[in-house]
Amino acid sequence: MILNRNNDAFARIEAMSPRTPGGNYVPFKQVGELVYLSGQTNSRDGKLTQTGQVGVDVSVEDGYAGARVCMENLFGTLKQAVGGDWNRVLECIRLTGYVNSTAPFGKGPAVINGASDLVVELMGEAGRHARSAVGVAALPGNATVEVEAIFRIKV
Amino acid sequence: MILNRNNDAFARIEAMSPRTPGGNYVPFKQVGELVYLSGQTNSRDGKLTQTGQVGVDVSVEDGYAGARVCMENLFGTLKQAVGGDWNRVLECIRLTGYVNSTAPFGKGPAVINGASDLVVELMGEAGRHARSAVGVAALPGNATVEVEAIFRIKV
Amino acid sequence: MILNRNNDAFARIEAMSPRTPGGNYVPFKQVGELVYLSGQTNSRDGKLTQTGQVGVDVSVEDGYAGARVCMENLFGTLKQAVGGDWNRVLECIRLTGYVNSTAPFGKGPAVINGASDLVVELMGEAGRHARSAVGVAALPGNATVEVEAIFRIKV
Repeated sequence: MILNRNNDAFARIEAMSPRTPGGNYVPFKQVGELVYLSGQTNSRDGKLTQTGQVGVDVSVEDGYAGARVCMENLFGTLKQAVGGDWNRVLECIRLTGYVNSTAPFGKGPAVINGASDLVVELMGEAGRHARSAVGVAALPGNATVEVEAIFRIKV
Repeated sequence: MILNRNNDAFARIEAMSPRTPGGNYVPFKQVGELVYLSGQTNSRDGKLTQTGQVGVDVSVEDGYAGARVCMENLFGTLKQAVGGDWNRVLECIRLTGYVNSTAPFGKGPAVINGASDLVVELMGEAGRHARSAVGVAALPGNATVEVEAIFRIKV
Repeated sequence: MILNRNNDAFARIEAMSPRTPGGNYVPFKQVGELVYLSGQTNSRDGKLTQTGQVGVDVSVEDGYAGARVCMENLFGTLKQAVGGDWNRVLECIRLTGYVNSTAPFGKGPAVINGASDLVVELMGEAGRHARSAVGVAALPGNATVEVEAIFRIKV
């Protein structure tokens, strides 16, 4: 379910076209009630909103904004998984957030909060999830953030 | 089930207070028999036991000790998930271990063994799990280790 | 199911001996229909086929070849999980690919395509999976690639 359709991200999610991954994989895979979503970077309209490392090239605030973009993209895929019927989305189970960064950068969680906040803004309590946030050495296209997710849906 | 209540970690686990994550996420999320636990760093009593990279700032032995602390914290969360009833814990399914390190450091598995050893010390064969160990560029608060887990519990 | 037994990787997979992890973990763990496979590096006959970072020490093409080796090893473990009966393998659910690399390297997906391509070569459409590809700072033994997987099997 989407509780907050007034969120500006929701309009962008609704407008997204289905994604075609650049390889032998798929945007999501469903097993029973669980949907495993492929990692999404902070790409909007085919272009990364930021590149490079948080703490070096990009501020934590901009990284946070990038994580929100990743989450929008995950919702775009989730929409495909439920055939456009948001009532079939039950809850968010887990997010793993990867932040392009280098030690001793320690604010990865503040970056990934961008994804966590958006899912809760859109879904309320059902959006709360288990999570890990780690800093990684490199991301696709030198993206700043990548987030993957598991959601539970009505079958 | 906890088979070995004499392990010194067990007393610390039993004494842990419920955690409040610093964001819009939760320490664990249950789906059927599976419990997804959020990543835990080597934090004890609110303070990291080590910071920095294994192989640079921290020895492999100290990294191993840090991974045990992560695992203690995961058990602290698991205790919440089963309402304090350890008999409801059935088995450990998977651990992912993230070691703050930099190439060509190759001993991540020896570090994450700290987490794997503790779960088997506490649970015996039921504690054996699938696992990945990777070296990451940065961790929350410049922690040395982060471990996330999936356990199976009695519903 | 394995649809393509003529693939040269298949002969190597069939010839693999059961693996013994170097720690208190197991090569795979099954829960219901799902099999969680421990991360496998690009090791063949006990020796890494490449070491070091893609983009620095190793070309993207060689990294791709390394990712195929990881996938062969995952199939070797999967064979154990289904007791050698390939008909019990139903589909690949998810891969997570870790590429030893450093920013601004952005071609991790092209590397992990080695794993994705092999699973689809061997299994066809059932091999398509959700996926994340991230660049990490260090891997076991300074391996170039590590891949972990979730498969669905007939119980």
